[in-house]
Amino acid sequence: MRDVAVIGIGCTPFGEKWNSSFRHLFVEAGSLALEDANIAGEQIDSMYVGNMSAGRFVEQEHIGALIADYAGLASHHIPATRVEAACSSGGLAFRQAVISVASGIEDIVVAAGVEKMTDVASGASVDTLAGAADREWEGFVGATFPGLYAMIATAYMDRYPLSREQLAQVAVKNHYNGARNPIAQFRQEITVDTVVNSTLVADPLRLFDCSPITDGAAAVVVAPLERAREFTDTPVRVLATAQASDTITLHDRRDICTLDASVAAGRWAFEMAGLSQKDIDLVEVHDCFAIAEICAIEDLGFCKKGEAGVLTEQGVTALGGDLPVNTSGGLKACGHPVGATGIKQVCELVQQLRGEAGKRQVDGAEIGMAHNVGGTGATVAVHILGV
Amino acid sequence: MRDVAVIGIGCTPFGEKWNSSFRHLFVEAGSLALEDANIAGEQIDSMYVGNMSAGRFVEQEHIGALIADYAGLASHHIPATRVEAACSSGGLAFRQAVISVASGIEDIVVAAGVEKMTDVASGASVDTLAGAADREWEGFVGATFPGLYAMIATAYMDRYPLSREQLAQVAVKNHYNGARNPIAQFRQEITVDTVVNSTLVADPLRLFDCSPITDGAAAVVVAPLERAREFTDTPVRVLATAQASDTITLHDRRDICTLDASVAAGRWAFEMAGLSQKDIDLVEVHDCFAIAEICAIEDLGFCKKGEAGVLTEQGVTALGGDLPVNTSGGLKACGHPVGATGIKQVCELVQQLRGEAGKRQVDGAEIGMAHNVGGTGATVAVHILGV
Repeated sequence: MRDVAVIGIGCTPFGEKWNSSFRHLFVEAGSLALEDANIAGEQIDSMYVGNMSAGRFVEQEHIGALIADYAGLASHHIPATRVEAACSSGGLAFRQAVISVASGIEDIVVAAGVEKMTDVASGASVDTLAGAADREWEGFVGATFPGLYAMIATAYMDRYPLSREQLAQVAVKNHYNGARNPIAQFRQEITVDTVVNSTLVADPLRLFDCSPITDGAAAVVVAPLERAREFTDTPVRVLATAQASDTITLHDRRDICTLDASVAAGRWAFEMAGLSQKDIDLVEVHDCFAIAEICAIEDLGFCKKGEAGVLTEQGVTALGGDLPVNTSGGLKACGHPVGATGIKQVCELVQQLRGEAGKRQVDGAEIGMAHNVGGTGATVAVHILGV
Repeated sequence: MRDVAVIGIGCTPFGEKWNSSFRHLFVEAGSLALEDANIAGEQIDSMYVGNMSAGRFVEQEHIGALIADYAGLASHHIPATRVEAACSSGGLAFRQAVISVASGIEDIVVAAGVEKMTDVASGASVDTLAGAADREWEGFVGATFPGLYAMIATAYMDRYPLSREQLAQVAVKNHYNGARNPIAQFRQEITVDTVVNSTLVADPLRLFDCSPITDGAAAVVVAPLERAREFTDTPVRVLATAQASDTITLHDRRDICTLDASVAAGRWAFEMAGLSQKDIDLVEVHDCFAIAEICAIEDLGFCKKGEAGVLTEQGVTALGGDLPVNTSGGLKACGHPVGATGIKQVCELVQQLRGEAGKRQVDGAEIGMAHNVGGTGATVAVHILGV
């Protein structure tokens, strides 16, 4: 297997993009990534696109070919493949691109993610997103994602000493970071009071514990490490790619407070990179709900079970802390266009490792991790990048 | 890159399976493939699943994890990835499995395809399938797939000497083959009269020129060639994998009578295998409509443009002819559960190359090709297998 590097990144602003269609969003992100990599579209060998549910959001399947076409690449006939694993679709698209380059089959490969969610009513969005859970055992009886994660939060708070204020601090921190990220959907700082006094969505989760419905796209270009400096002075190496599955329903889990797929993918990634938790300078974790960030920090081995609330309260996971988590603003403040999120996480790591993250820069960042979750943890992708 | 072999295959009967759910179908196919490969589920390193539109057919996304879970593999946490490219989703799943094993990242990988289409009304099916075309430029104005392929047929019959009877012979031949295939949806022989007197669907295409709506699943197991004989005495080598894209809309094509993605993927596959058309003993082509088989035979280079009708009439593409096409019965007689079709084609080749195809066996078959099309040719996957 060959070593692989990221040579270009691009990301649209995330938000309610009523003036941009599905296809415009990804062309914008793809163009930014190609420009960043100093390459023309015809130099691309193939493309992987992460998208959860364009079939239901915009009645369009066959996403890979659509994207290659609207990117102006149809006459080059390059392979274009959509991958889907709900909210981890972007992470899996990145993984497939890395595998393809590592295999030697292709050299210059684009991994992109896109979701256009605001063209349907919010009730339809919530039902479409429930397609990431088990339709027969969860969606059919009315379970939505806020409801499922509320069950995790309830069980967690019953078993471990996580206070309402500690949980709120996750969103407070991520809004602080998002306020410093030009692509974030929400660029306002908030307080613990904002969170604990916001509308109850699914007890104990309130509005500001939940990531929003978002339109957006992100793209990265990967190449063999040995060729990376043909295109960029700042290649970022892919040190590990790992992916794990678990039961699709929450009720079948060994323990709903632990995402075993996060544990497995995290362990495999550390093994592949030959690194451990202390080597990681920053992490982007999948904070679809505040409780998910708490679980992720623990499941990836950065602290013991039950300790992430205290770490968050103490500022360990804040910008300037020992382990900055979600410097991008996370899903909470950046927004969560589900297929794009996993690629946006990679974009954030690359910006940080290049030293180009501006007001949210982690000083001296050399190694970062991205953690992307599908559903309530039935799929998890973990990547480690380094310079 | 490592050489890759198919070590096991499994396919459900295709048809209207009102007593089998989406998840039951793939568990059935997967179990058959594991049994055929003499392996247990826990020996699998990862899984790729081709599926076009479970989101709209059964309101379920996150297909990879769902399948790994219902296959009893959740506790092993193996990666499970859905790939989608409309009707070529299965071919792309096979390609991703081959790339993964070739890269050395994984050893024993399952490629599967599944579609459950009959749980919705036929109008909803037709609209969902239109998601394989461009929703904004084709679906929005009412174009359906019979309509799009009817435009291809009309242009083709205007330009080349293809008679109504020659076109009908495609379905007659495929029903003859399907009558000899235990998994086929339609196992009745038909005549040219049956076709030309059947209901007009979209002029000039009649009911028997069109593949049906079908439920079904298929799975294959691939492994490094060097390990294949640990599992089977009859490994079948993957000699080439190729994939090409084209414009998603028909009106943007250089020539709607030629699928340029078929031309490109076919050429790349022959180059990769170091073979030419004369080396191929049988081909499974994507006959979603009769005209598609005519185009495919020409686009893959087996004859000149405009000659496939005569070849079909003369029996060259029949069982016992010089180039048997769609010995399985093709999409026409086997049925076309869209995500499963590309994998079913591989299953057919493997059965033929092992000499296990019973009444439809091609004597001495050593090299076969599978050709899987998404939409009207915006995605094409071509694979060459050999013993």
